[in-house]
Amino acid sequence: MTPTITAFEQSPDRGSGQARDMRVRWALEEVGQPYDVRLVSFSQMKEPAHRALHPFGQIPTYEEGDLALFESGAIVFHIAERHAGLLPDDANARARAITWMFAALSTLEPPILELQNAVVLERGESWHSQRLPMVEDRIRDRLGALSDRLADADWLDGAFSAGDLMMVGVLRRLHRSGLLNEYPNLAAYVARGEARPAFKRAFDAQLAVFTAASAG
Amino acid sequence: MTPTITAFEQSPDRGSGQARDMRVRWALEEVGQPYDVRLVSFSQMKEPAHRALHPFGQIPTYEEGDLALFESGAIVFHIAERHAGLLPDDANARARAITWMFAALSTLEPPILELQNAVVLERGESWHSQRLPMVEDRIRDRLGALSDRLADADWLDGAFSAGDLMMVGVLRRLHRSGLLNEYPNLAAYVARGEARPAFKRAFDAQLAVFTAASAG
Repeated sequence: MTPTITAFEQSPDRGSGQARDMRVRWALEEVGQPYDVRLVSFSQMKEPAHRALHPFGQIPTYEEGDLALFESGAIVFHIAERHAGLLPDDANARARAITWMFAALSTLEPPILELQNAVVLERGESWHSQRLPMVEDRIRDRLGALSDRLADADWLDGAFSAGDLMMVGVLRRLHRSGLLNEYPNLAAYVARGEARPAFKRAFDAQLAVFTAASAG
Repeated sequence: MTPTITAFEQSPDRGSGQARDMRVRWALEEVGQPYDVRLVSFSQMKEPAHRALHPFGQIPTYEEGDLALFESGAIVFHIAERHAGLLPDDANARARAITWMFAALSTLEPPILELQNAVVLERGESWHSQRLPMVEDRIRDRLGALSDRLADADWLDGAFSAGDLMMVGVLRRLHRSGLLNEYPNLAAYVARGEARPAFKRAFDAQLAVFTAASAG
């Protein structure tokens, strides 16, 4: 059964693939699962019909028969559990890959979201430029630890896994900030993820939505 | 095999059970799995021996034979996967319970952490009192949506699950802020979680560490 995901009708990031549908598209491409996309507008996202699928009025959602999920982490995990290629077979290695999924979302993403909030929602405040370095330092604290752990490895724990997919997906949100470039092994790690054929297919698919919208 | 978790040697919250070992203790109590605790000081947490277990120098960690995990979400999920009682048997219900685990950590906790950072790290800034309401409103946005979804149900999706455990664990971080009281059904939901015998056993165990440290 072909699953259906939701994505933004209009890209808030001009097609740079920062929205969370990108992580789900990437996972589906990695495992070779075709999917349908239903685009939703910002106003539709807040309406009861969409809220029934996603209580917080966001994207992505995932529908497959009578199963409806939200949260990119949960959806990627669901895909990874049901197809080969994103989680190791060995039980301990599998648990560690899942740990990196949670680390991406619980340890790396919160300070990155705080930076995003600062840049988007607090730019006009008189104290914005004074506060920004404090927020960036909280991200550096996490990036430094991650950089130390990754060292010169290609991926976080052996072969590429759903943990790397989520981590690269989260770290990509830092492209504009320039912070990644302070950690060359992390910049190379993200580039390695973005060079995967499945990533490229997913990226092109989300970009096509933006390109079509611009032309329309 | 009895697993060993790590927790703070000295409680930064004076035993109110806000630290993330509480979620793991609670999960272990729910499934009836005995566990050992190794206490670590704030300086030990940043040393290489602990960083080998937890790359970000935090607690909790989880060791079981040759398996070592970090991230409370990943540890609770590992426990839930290997014991009965925290995830439904039905595949779709199980996927939805996992979705609520991710929602707790990815959608609710980030703005709550932002509030915590504001209160702890930015209290001395001249703009602190001006910014605080903006941060609280970001939390209200999420709490309102969660309150609407929960409505008058006891738990988020049928029976109590690891999703509820993580959500209650995250929402408890708002006790001091008073924000929960603006959503009576969420306040009752958290109280329902805290009234569970397994929660109480876990809470008493983490409190005993603080009490012993105070008496020592």
